[in-house]
Amino acid sequence: MSGIQDAPDRTEIPLDGIGVTELVYPVTVPARDGAPQTTAAAFSLNIAMGKEARGAHMSRFVEILDGDPRLLSAAGLRTLLTDLVAAHEARAARAEIDFTFFVHRSAPVSGAGSLLACPVTMEASLGDDFDLVTTVVVPVMTVCPCSKEATGGPAHSQRGHVAVSIRTEGRVWIEEIVELVEDCASAPVYPLLKGDDERSVIEDAHEDPVLVEDLVRRTAERLDSDVRVSWYRVEAENLDSVHDHNLSACVERPLS
Amino acid sequence: MSGIQDAPDRTEIPLDGIGVTELVYPVTVPARDGAPQTTAAAFSLNIAMGKEARGAHMSRFVEILDGDPRLLSAAGLRTLLTDLVAAHEARAARAEIDFTFFVHRSAPVSGAGSLLACPVTMEASLGDDFDLVTTVVVPVMTVCPCSKEATGGPAHSQRGHVAVSIRTEGRVWIEEIVELVEDCASAPVYPLLKGDDERSVIEDAHEDPVLVEDLVRRTAERLDSDVRVSWYRVEAENLDSVHDHNLSACVERPLS
Amino acid sequence: MSGIQDAPDRTEIPLDGIGVTELVYPVTVPARDGAPQTTAAAFSLNIAMGKEARGAHMSRFVEILDGDPRLLSAAGLRTLLTDLVAAHEARAARAEIDFTFFVHRSAPVSGAGSLLACPVTMEASLGDDFDLVTTVVVPVMTVCPCSKEATGGPAHSQRGHVAVSIRTEGRVWIEEIVELVEDCASAPVYPLLKGDDERSVIEDAHEDPVLVEDLVRRTAERLDSDVRVSWYRVEAENLDSVHDHNLSACVERPLS
Amino acid sequence: MSGIQDAPDRTEIPLDGIGVTELVYPVTVPARDGAPQTTAAAFSLNIAMGKEARGAHMSRFVEILDGDPRLLSAAGLRTLLTDLVAAHEARAARAEIDFTFFVHRSAPVSGAGSLLACPVTMEASLGDDFDLVTTVVVPVMTVCPCSKEATGGPAHSQRGHVAVSIRTEGRVWIEEIVELVEDCASAPVYPLLKGDDERSVIEDAHEDPVLVEDLVRRTAERLDSDVRVSWYRVEAENLDSVHDHNLSACVERPLS
Repeated sequence: MSGIQDAPDRTEIPLDGIGVTELVYPVTVPARDGAPQTTAAAFSLNIAMGKEARGAHMSRFVEILDGDPRLLSAAGLRTLLTDLVAAHEARAARAEIDFTFFVHRSAPVSGAGSLLACPVTMEASLGDDFDLVTTVVVPVMTVCPCSKEATGGPAHSQRGHVAVSIRTEGRVWIEEIVELVEDCASAPVYPLLKGDDERSVIEDAHEDPVLVEDLVRRTAERLDSDVRVSWYRVEAENLDSVHDHNLSACVERPLS
Repeated sequence: MSGIQDAPDRTEIPLDGIGVTELVYPVTVPARDGAPQTTAAAFSLNIAMGKEARGAHMSRFVEILDGDPRLLSAAGLRTLLTDLVAAHEARAARAEIDFTFFVHRSAPVSGAGSLLACPVTMEASLGDDFDLVTTVVVPVMTVCPCSKEATGGPAHSQRGHVAVSIRTEGRVWIEEIVELVEDCASAPVYPLLKGDDERSVIEDAHEDPVLVEDLVRRTAERLDSDVRVSWYRVEAENLDSVHDHNLSACVERPLS
Repeated sequence: MSGIQDAPDRTEIPLDGIGVTELVYPVTVPARDGAPQTTAAAFSLNIAMGKEARGAHMSRFVEILDGDPRLLSAAGLRTLLTDLVAAHEARAARAEIDFTFFVHRSAPVSGAGSLLACPVTMEASLGDDFDLVTTVVVPVMTVCPCSKEATGGPAHSQRGHVAVSIRTEGRVWIEEIVELVEDCASAPVYPLLKGDDERSVIEDAHEDPVLVEDLVRRTAERLDSDVRVSWYRVEAENLDSVHDHNLSACVERPLS
Repeated sequence: MSGIQDAPDRTEIPLDGIGVTELVYPVTVPARDGAPQTTAAAFSLNIAMGKEARGAHMSRFVEILDGDPRLLSAAGLRTLLTDLVAAHEARAARAEIDFTFFVHRSAPVSGAGSLLACPVTMEASLGDDFDLVTTVVVPVMTVCPCSKEATGGPAHSQRGHVAVSIRTEGRVWIEEIVELVEDCASAPVYPLLKGDDERSVIEDAHEDPVLVEDLVRRTAERLDSDVRVSWYRVEAENLDSVHDHNLSACVERPLS
């Protein structure tokens, strides 16, 4: 449009990021069952820019995204970032992508099927190396062990959300993260439960009460034992039923 | 700034509303304990405009709000709307105002005090008459009676939010609405509960399990019996702990 | 799970709505180009319930949704609601569905293609009759005519969002609503504009400055002249660039 | 309530954070004009917990907050964190607090006064040392220099939000950050502008067009020259008027 972006910048301050945010585009997400999921995703895309130029060519972010198949695999993201780096002659590029992924659920007694929606975020960057952090938010049920002990009977329960962020060597399916977290909660949540299913879930959940502390520690323990996981961060929030605020816990494995 | 707003409009289409939204300003809210609360509120202000003029003078909305004491009583809101009508020579004016109100809570056993934050919306309009609808969102705890019956013991519980909207003749304090709804739930929620308090709340809640249907019907019944309440709408959402979606119920008394 | 839902209700208060909210499920949306779009949508589903029963069978909402093809055409929505009414032996059923729809855009000079994301809401109900209101939010650009006149040159511009809600007799594509609104603004917005495109858009927009009042009136005028549209409501919000609050206007055609 | 929290934890995994989120409480914020502002704030409070104990005593977070004057000065935050560390016998404690702060604005020609609402976040931590990062989001107006050059006249403008995060040695008022950022934009935004004010703002803004890149670099340059600022991060988002997505830029000074 003009030479303004390419003119030298007076301040000589390099930019850590320059790009677009809240750009919504259709994507395809690989799934373990072999049927990729198509949905809408929100993109933030940016590059690192040296002090030489005054501005980035903003249309190129959209141009590359529109030209890309937008398959959200590690290989697909690496291609997207490689194209961004090349188009901008940049040192580095980053993408953050938010979308909803559906996981098949079967009710424990009736076997009734339904789809559980899990928010997923992928944060990919390419500089000297390619890096990918995948975050899956898994809804679960928790029963409070303190109240169970204190009353000798009734205990309060609530919905919790566990956000697991991982870096991996080798593929880890979103579905695997969901299942791993559900094993660490008092019970999974299900979109569809018939009467006998609900009774079963509640009885099972009360047999295995967990603090929000237990929930993140158990999840961390499971991730520690998975050789494919090179880094993780687990953050859980319990939508406590005796309060209107949340109880939260967090643990992060240091980068080795 | 120019005569454009005052010029006749070619389309001859009257506007149902013209004004400002997402305007954040400090307000003072009367409280039952005599200590008014100061906080930030989000305003939508608009007027009905005939087909004569092309545009409204948008600066007057802010000018009047800035000049107003912004005391969110019925009288204060009537003054604000009267000023808006006069400044715009309008047929009608409306205000919608969102803010947080704090209610004192004492834990049931220890008596430990804390403040419970309740979202409040006031919708006021002035045309031929002055009208005011106040909506208070009250967080509560609900225990499921179906699961209690089915298991013969453990039952799931969750946080619920009950939005009560009322038109009144005579003053009804926000605090009264909160207390009324809490009476209709399995138990109130509290920001602060010590160990003995929590046990007491949980035991009480399990003695009084309610469906989301029960919650709105009980609340409606209480509002029906309050002669000051001339209209209401009750909407409850249970953040169900065995699902990641909510269960909701709604009942509205027709305008008589 | 138990007979609690089917037991008679003590209060004898009928419920205007009872059901589920924030239930996220995949959907398919018909598109004018013949290629239906697959995406994730948020559902609220509820039924009207008489005073006879204490509770609804909540699992049936999810069961029906999971069994349904979830094609968001008028016919598809009518089938969904018919199934809900039958499953609950209800007087009426309602669905509110939120999703993102993508519209193809070609830049005005270069012809560069991209996809514009538009939020869409469908509100369908079935009682004595079937009713469907479709709301499309269309992003546009507006240039202020007052500032243009006042300065004799520079004028401020901003992003605006126009929410058009319609009831129709005969099919109106989402794409048609988007195009209709874009004609009424100073200019459309585009995800992808190369340099010459951007100059063209800005020059065109400054040739056709509009107040937020003009924007809704022009849109209303266009809808008035479309024989397929039996009712509408137009709400526009300008993200004004000289303020941090929005300017809004609204016009609704009364139901005939 | 029980000894469960104090029991040893089987996993021996220390927790990086354990506490409460979305706890809304009234606060008082010091202001440069000597009149502290009272408003509602959202708190996240947590402590770092060793591997010895299974759980934290969650009621203590609320107990301390309720007992605290909640004056959001550096000294006030240090006291709050010191109390949290002591109550939990913890190695470290953290607080993140979100609220709205009002800044007085005078229109440039008429002098008409109004209040500009700025979102503020304070992130304080206490471990070996006390640390405080204050983030102020400043709304501004930007005019695009590329389109101005390309058309030789009309240029598009938009609202932008600049989030400035700083660590300081010595006090820096929120009001100073707002003024500093406004100097770096094409123009400030004002809640209240009369006709002559609006013309003046628009003419001034078109005299000083800035890219989002310029906006963050200019702000960084100003922060670089302020000896009180020991670290900063500047993130700007332009709500571009020719797109429905945002353009963003970011620069962070490394911790020395």
